[in-house]
Amino acid sequence: MMPDGPDLLTIPTPALILDNDRLTRNITRMNAHVARLRARLRPHIKTHKCLPIAQRQVAGWFGGVTVSTLAEGFACAAAGFEDILYAVPLEPGKLARACALAQRVRRLAVITDDPDLPKLLAAAAAAAGVVVEVLIEIDCGDGRTGLPWDDPVGIARVARAITSAQRLTLAGLLTHAGQSYAARNAAERRSIAELERDRLQQAAAGLEQAGFEVPCLSIGSTPTITALDAPLPPKFEVRPGNYVFFDAFQAQCGVCAWDDCALTVLAAVVHRGDGKVVVDAGAIALSKDIGAPDFFSDSGYGVVGDLEGHPLGLRVAAVSQEHGRIPVSETTLLARLPVGTRLRIVPNHACLTAAQHDHYWVVAGSRVIDRWPIIRGW
Amino acid sequence: MMPDGPDLLTIPTPALILDNDRLTRNITRMNAHVARLRARLRPHIKTHKCLPIAQRQVAGWFGGVTVSTLAEGFACAAAGFEDILYAVPLEPGKLARACALAQRVRRLAVITDDPDLPKLLAAAAAAAGVVVEVLIEIDCGDGRTGLPWDDPVGIARVARAITSAQRLTLAGLLTHAGQSYAARNAAERRSIAELERDRLQQAAAGLEQAGFEVPCLSIGSTPTITALDAPLPPKFEVRPGNYVFFDAFQAQCGVCAWDDCALTVLAAVVHRGDGKVVVDAGAIALSKDIGAPDFFSDSGYGVVGDLEGHPLGLRVAAVSQEHGRIPVSETTLLARLPVGTRLRIVPNHACLTAAQHDHYWVVAGSRVIDRWPIIRGW
Repeated sequence: MMPDGPDLLTIPTPALILDNDRLTRNITRMNAHVARLRARLRPHIKTHKCLPIAQRQVAGWFGGVTVSTLAEGFACAAAGFEDILYAVPLEPGKLARACALAQRVRRLAVITDDPDLPKLLAAAAAAAGVVVEVLIEIDCGDGRTGLPWDDPVGIARVARAITSAQRLTLAGLLTHAGQSYAARNAAERRSIAELERDRLQQAAAGLEQAGFEVPCLSIGSTPTITALDAPLPPKFEVRPGNYVFFDAFQAQCGVCAWDDCALTVLAAVVHRGDGKVVVDAGAIALSKDIGAPDFFSDSGYGVVGDLEGHPLGLRVAAVSQEHGRIPVSETTLLARLPVGTRLRIVPNHACLTAAQHDHYWVVAGSRVIDRWPIIRGW
Repeated sequence: MMPDGPDLLTIPTPALILDNDRLTRNITRMNAHVARLRARLRPHIKTHKCLPIAQRQVAGWFGGVTVSTLAEGFACAAAGFEDILYAVPLEPGKLARACALAQRVRRLAVITDDPDLPKLLAAAAAAAGVVVEVLIEIDCGDGRTGLPWDDPVGIARVARAITSAQRLTLAGLLTHAGQSYAARNAAERRSIAELERDRLQQAAAGLEQAGFEVPCLSIGSTPTITALDAPLPPKFEVRPGNYVFFDAFQAQCGVCAWDDCALTVLAAVVHRGDGKVVVDAGAIALSKDIGAPDFFSDSGYGVVGDLEGHPLGLRVAAVSQEHGRIPVSETTLLARLPVGTRLRIVPNHACLTAAQHDHYWVVAGSRVIDRWPIIRGW
């Protein structure tokens, strides 16, 4: 706590600002929602890569987290987290580090869709003296990674590779309906969420029919989990991540309200010219995620508010490495934005923006109450 | 030096790989080119944010560097650099830190286009007991920052604000022809480079006519400097940055050859599916710069080579946070890319990719010979 510390007028820009009240509200709301779904919450910490946030997310749950890098995993283990799911497909070059992480926790789960990996992982697990749990990744329509949900033969083949290897446990099936990020409204999101749930269940049913036990079904993403409203069947775990912060993309989709967005980039005007200002938050401070320009062309690289976060009807239209260009057509507004003016920019994609910084300035209103480090690297 | 250290088959992925021979060749070539131009070289270190590279770049020159953040400036000062140009417009919130940096070096130059800033800077300089040099930023057609090159009244107004303030020196004029990144061929680049040079000279002539001395004219960018072939008039400083690494964008533009590209991201295949592989380098490891999709749609988020760097005719077509999707239409090639295969990806925009990492793995061939840290933050 820094009661007499800096505030939004004095901290160096660009800076990543986290609104503590909104963070708390977002976590509370998701907790209630997942409880209604009767699922287990294993939050994805890739969004924030930050231990104090992960600790708040798991409070009242079973303590499990999802990570996107082994670096996040080791940081969590060092902080006392004991149940970690590494949710990017494991590959042979990471076996030794994954098993070193398994030595530090009660339970490490990894994912794969490759029939050749389990044997290699089993050898590394034996060398490290650990047991590793393995979920088979299923593609429920996203087209990124995983075995097709309707390929029971391929899924059973990987299951057999896992169960026939020493020191590995078949922990279940996992999928990620990444296609939900292309949904334009709540109805589309809900139908994708139902596919995610139903296709994973069908894949699990096929596997059980083939004689395998499927202890867990893991589904993910803030848009799909938010879109579900009926309780999930038993065994379901959910892995939303973005909900702690939300962002301009989620707000424009209607997944959240604008005033749910907990993360902003504090920036200062460095240039005022004809019909524009330029701020000191560019491609590095904001990331270069343009969201979904095909149907949300208005957000650019971020939506601009004043120091209190009130929207100014402006967006960051272009970025270079350390410059963000904000068109300002109204001359009366432009007159209120001299060089030095501080603005708060709601990023398009909070996960990528947070990963660009080394720490959060946690605020209550405009007062900085804490500073939380961000886990970096892989 | 790590003679018995790791190699490209053993270091953890994703990783940033810097080819030492190509780096050296690129630096040597630019040195010879700038010597032919009879200009002073003040390399922009924003591309690499790395002291060992900056030291190689200034060898044989006067020692000056250009930085894009005060963090880069403080790191350079701590490493013994004595002449630093901070080339993002200064704003009131950074006055104290800029003057603290000025205390640590022989010469700090900053830039502005704002008539109100010099007075504030002078007060901060007095408080810190330093003298700060100031260049006026000129817009030669890029439209990002700076006063219009053909606005002699506006330029003289800022010059007067500088020269009438205590502890400030008018150090000259600076411009950046960022529009060169939209040029499609060498002829277009050369005409933009000539505009950059000529318009800055015209702005200087106007200022001299108004009675001001203009000690330095600073122009920049790898594409424009490379496009110039006639010696520059006296007083010119040049600030290329990207030339140390080059990247897929510059190669596609014809600014460099493909085998000049010194920077790659080492990635491992984590998934092989129907007509594609997915690697462990996504939006964080590569950055999310899609280059110039309007006229170079083929590079996607990076151009894929094998472990030796030989092109495979593949590109990263889509990224999510930790996933890069590479379409592979040839089945014989797909068969050679099982999970665990390591690939080297030439990024679209080397500056943004480098800023995503904490260090370079410096290689001679496939052998790691050193590891150089990257300056982070602002």
